[in-house]
Amino acid sequence: MSLPRQTTVQYGDIVMIVGKDHKVFLRTVRQRDVIQTHYGQVDFDKMVGMPYGEQFRTHLGNPLYILAPNLEDVLIFLNRGTQIIYPKDLGYIILKLGLFQGAQVIESGTGSGALTSMLALMVGDEGKVYSYERRAGHLQQAKQNLERLGLDHRVNFIQRDIEQGFDQSGVHALFLDVPNPTDYLDQAWAALRGGGFFGALVPTANQLIELLYALQHGPWFFIQAEELIMRPWKTVPARARPDDNMYGHTGFLIFARAVSRETHYIVTETDDPEIRPPIE
Amino acid sequence: MSLPRQTTVQYGDIVMIVGKDHKVFLRTVRQRDVIQTHYGQVDFDKMVGMPYGEQFRTHLGNPLYILAPNLEDVLIFLNRGTQIIYPKDLGYIILKLGLFQGAQVIESGTGSGALTSMLALMVGDEGKVYSYERRAGHLQQAKQNLERLGLDHRVNFIQRDIEQGFDQSGVHALFLDVPNPTDYLDQAWAALRGGGFFGALVPTANQLIELLYALQHGPWFFIQAEELIMRPWKTVPARARPDDNMYGHTGFLIFARAVSRETHYIVTETDDPEIRPPIE
Amino acid sequence: MSLPRQTTVQYGDIVMIVGKDHKVFLRTVRQRDVIQTHYGQVDFDKMVGMPYGEQFRTHLGNPLYILAPNLEDVLIFLNRGTQIIYPKDLGYIILKLGLFQGAQVIESGTGSGALTSMLALMVGDEGKVYSYERRAGHLQQAKQNLERLGLDHRVNFIQRDIEQGFDQSGVHALFLDVPNPTDYLDQAWAALRGGGFFGALVPTANQLIELLYALQHGPWFFIQAEELIMRPWKTVPARARPDDNMYGHTGFLIFARAVSRETHYIVTETDDPEIRPPIE
Amino acid sequence: MSLPRQTTVQYGDIVMIVGKDHKVFLRTVRQRDVIQTHYGQVDFDKMVGMPYGEQFRTHLGNPLYILAPNLEDVLIFLNRGTQIIYPKDLGYIILKLGLFQGAQVIESGTGSGALTSMLALMVGDEGKVYSYERRAGHLQQAKQNLERLGLDHRVNFIQRDIEQGFDQSGVHALFLDVPNPTDYLDQAWAALRGGGFFGALVPTANQLIELLYALQHGPWFFIQAEELIMRPWKTVPARARPDDNMYGHTGFLIFARAVSRETHYIVTETDDPEIRPPIE
Repeated sequence: MSLPRQTTVQYGDIVMIVGKDHKVFLRTVRQRDVIQTHYGQVDFDKMVGMPYGEQFRTHLGNPLYILAPNLEDVLIFLNRGTQIIYPKDLGYIILKLGLFQGAQVIESGTGSGALTSMLALMVGDEGKVYSYERRAGHLQQAKQNLERLGLDHRVNFIQRDIEQGFDQSGVHALFLDVPNPTDYLDQAWAALRGGGFFGALVPTANQLIELLYALQHGPWFFIQAEELIMRPWKTVPARARPDDNMYGHTGFLIFARAVSRETHYIVTETDDPEIRPPIE
Repeated sequence: MSLPRQTTVQYGDIVMIVGKDHKVFLRTVRQRDVIQTHYGQVDFDKMVGMPYGEQFRTHLGNPLYILAPNLEDVLIFLNRGTQIIYPKDLGYIILKLGLFQGAQVIESGTGSGALTSMLALMVGDEGKVYSYERRAGHLQQAKQNLERLGLDHRVNFIQRDIEQGFDQSGVHALFLDVPNPTDYLDQAWAALRGGGFFGALVPTANQLIELLYALQHGPWFFIQAEELIMRPWKTVPARARPDDNMYGHTGFLIFARAVSRETHYIVTETDDPEIRPPIE
Repeated sequence: MSLPRQTTVQYGDIVMIVGKDHKVFLRTVRQRDVIQTHYGQVDFDKMVGMPYGEQFRTHLGNPLYILAPNLEDVLIFLNRGTQIIYPKDLGYIILKLGLFQGAQVIESGTGSGALTSMLALMVGDEGKVYSYERRAGHLQQAKQNLERLGLDHRVNFIQRDIEQGFDQSGVHALFLDVPNPTDYLDQAWAALRGGGFFGALVPTANQLIELLYALQHGPWFFIQAEELIMRPWKTVPARARPDDNMYGHTGFLIFARAVSRETHYIVTETDDPEIRPPIE
Repeated sequence: MSLPRQTTVQYGDIVMIVGKDHKVFLRTVRQRDVIQTHYGQVDFDKMVGMPYGEQFRTHLGNPLYILAPNLEDVLIFLNRGTQIIYPKDLGYIILKLGLFQGAQVIESGTGSGALTSMLALMVGDEGKVYSYERRAGHLQQAKQNLERLGLDHRVNFIQRDIEQGFDQSGVHALFLDVPNPTDYLDQAWAALRGGGFFGALVPTANQLIELLYALQHGPWFFIQAEELIMRPWKTVPARARPDDNMYGHTGFLIFARAVSRETHYIVTETDDPEIRPPIE
């Protein structure tokens, strides 16, 4: 199973079929699979071999577009036991973590596997994602989600309370999406290579402040904190304007680099936005 | 030359050296290269073999952190003849374009190669980026930038006015960062595979409206328009707050899927944000 | 009837009574008025004379805070046939329109009277609001809303298609909240004093562009366009963060000054954000 | 002296004269006053009696528009020893504080008098603003600014460390723009009438959290926290788009109502955004 790679529908592809009302059906194509929709029956055996971008006709003759989903399309349909990291943040995270084909990266918690999937997409077959999760249920669900995406071979899932640390060391990057990232900075530092990329996502300003304090007082440098705000627009050209509603907040993104323990500094709590923390 | 892959400094690495004032020096490590900084002399031969994350001492004994840059760090120092697409948008674009290791993607214009670099990072050695640019000067500059990043082998640079169309067909995705993307939708459609991912970035609402109109009236589906707004925060924990200044705008991101010509629809210019374009 | 002016509840006051679940009841206090709530009966005769800020007990003994509403609290409960201008914009509009006690201001359309109320609050008993509305139903409803607020004596309601122009001239300021403000700029200019303040609110970028074009080509100067974005935060101190959802958009605010016809200029359509329109 | 009230220029008016390059000169019109500009000499005696919105010619014949400023225009030119509250916030504050003609309101600190001016505009001649400031220099400067606006008769300036409390009681509303508003909540509560409107502006999330905590644990109800974000747009119609740069942050606005001491509650630190604090 995987995201489609061919120009025509294959068994095992995750296909997105979309009706005139933009209602989306996401399905992995399997033999002798037939689903009922309000447009009529969809027989997937009949869909195999059809080119993506064409219309499939239900047994009632209603047209449905056959599209290849991107990761964002699939994430919406992932089996989810947890809040996921939003697409607007996923792409930015892999850039800030300095990832590339062949990189090794640690994340915790696994959650539903949304970030796991994006990390796996980026590091390629030569790379590896080590994904830590305390809760067996979430880990199992994430595994299934990654299998469905055909990316599970790039991921090692480890059930662990990261209080006990990580098995790897010298990894390129590490991301924490846990309620209390501040508690695991020592474990994170131990797993990262020198200058390695650290990232975290926290929903509240309280957590942001706590994490900034710990990073500023520890062996971390180049500390950054940001919000990434997505503002969708309506797409009717005669009435172009932002949507009436949007997400007001998903979380704060914090990034830093692991540096040698001897040389970190204590931040001066200055009011001047331009003053940057000295090295020593 | 490339982004560092080892844990210690190698000849050919792009290294980022950073002083206590956060002033950043970006340099490709070469033999017998010495630079003067306000901290003193930096002799790169002496830096080779040092672990990233450690401090290098200038001939005056001043400490400078040695860090491995991520793409964002490098983009700031790229030789630039043009405005670049901002990091906040780069990561999101590769997600929305449905890219993966091995994908083929077209972009135009090349500009300074910022998006080119991000696309090349994502598609890996098995993939290919076809980058079209009309202006020889920009193309030459972008080539040098990609070489510096060690990603040029993943990119075909073509000097071309895309009015004449693209050489490739059946590509997975195509992105336009040109002043008049609306003029090239036919060429884009011809280059994309069925259901292929189209994206564009335009700075003005006028261009957004024009492009939405053309997409709604052409063989395109699943049209989306969004702004991605980056809000940086100060990192002094005792005074956590957003920076006083931020970018108010970089551009509007528009995405769509190429669908079969027979079946597209004409959008009804409705006021209702919930009404979605019918397929036929 | 009016917003409360005394420290204790009076007949005719609009009172806001709020239960522990923050459910708000808004009511004008009248004799022999009793309402049923999920907290029990509220007998308003028993509330009269109680100090604001105290708790009233229902016949079941449940406590309800008695509060004096501000205009925002009341607007939420106004009889509304139309979308109202949001509080975040109301306050800003009266500042941008240069209003003061004794000023004369025109608005159209009246809608449900939200802006009418704010304008009336600002110009005081010595000032006057001329409110134009084409639709009799809305006008009637707005009148009732202003009466309820005790502000109707400061407003002249005129049922009129403003295509025919305004009865007043030499007014300090004029605000248009209509679908096609561009069509009424001549009428607006004729009603305003020299240098008078013009404002408008439009929901779409198309209308914004059209209005900017007309203003730039007419006897208007000091043209400004802005969005005012309200981002509410949760108020639980241990988990301070922006609300998950917010309004993505209400409208664009445009302001300008009416200047003498002889001397206006034609804007050069420049790309340079710093170039400002020359006077002649 | 005052903001202009007539349609023609009077001695004592604050006039705004604006050249083709949008360079603004703000000046109180006085006899025998002549200023030099890069457009040539401006003789204010010659300007008296001219209609606003017309053009004045310098001795070189260069045209300058004569405009009546609104409060925002003047604030930019106020003698300022301190950061001022931005116009986007001023209008919203007077709405949230439930002000009206005749209201009594306390503010501290006075700063440069920006909010003082807006409050004075709103409460009218029948109302009163009590403005507390510890620093004599700022108080003197604010007085001059209010005199210049012709609003000083509506304001009582008191030099005081508000640690010692306020002289008034039973006021309709009170606003704190001081570094540590949390320290003065008891004094604020004592000055406010039952159900009176409290507001504060704080720049940092740390202060926001501290203030929310104190309000949630004190005799306050209907607590709200918000950010008001201003996004200016370019006004060239052919290239409509948000400005490249904007203010990322000015401050957090917090509002609450003073309620009887007996009955306040302790907030449960819940994660659920919908759960609201119970009354008791």
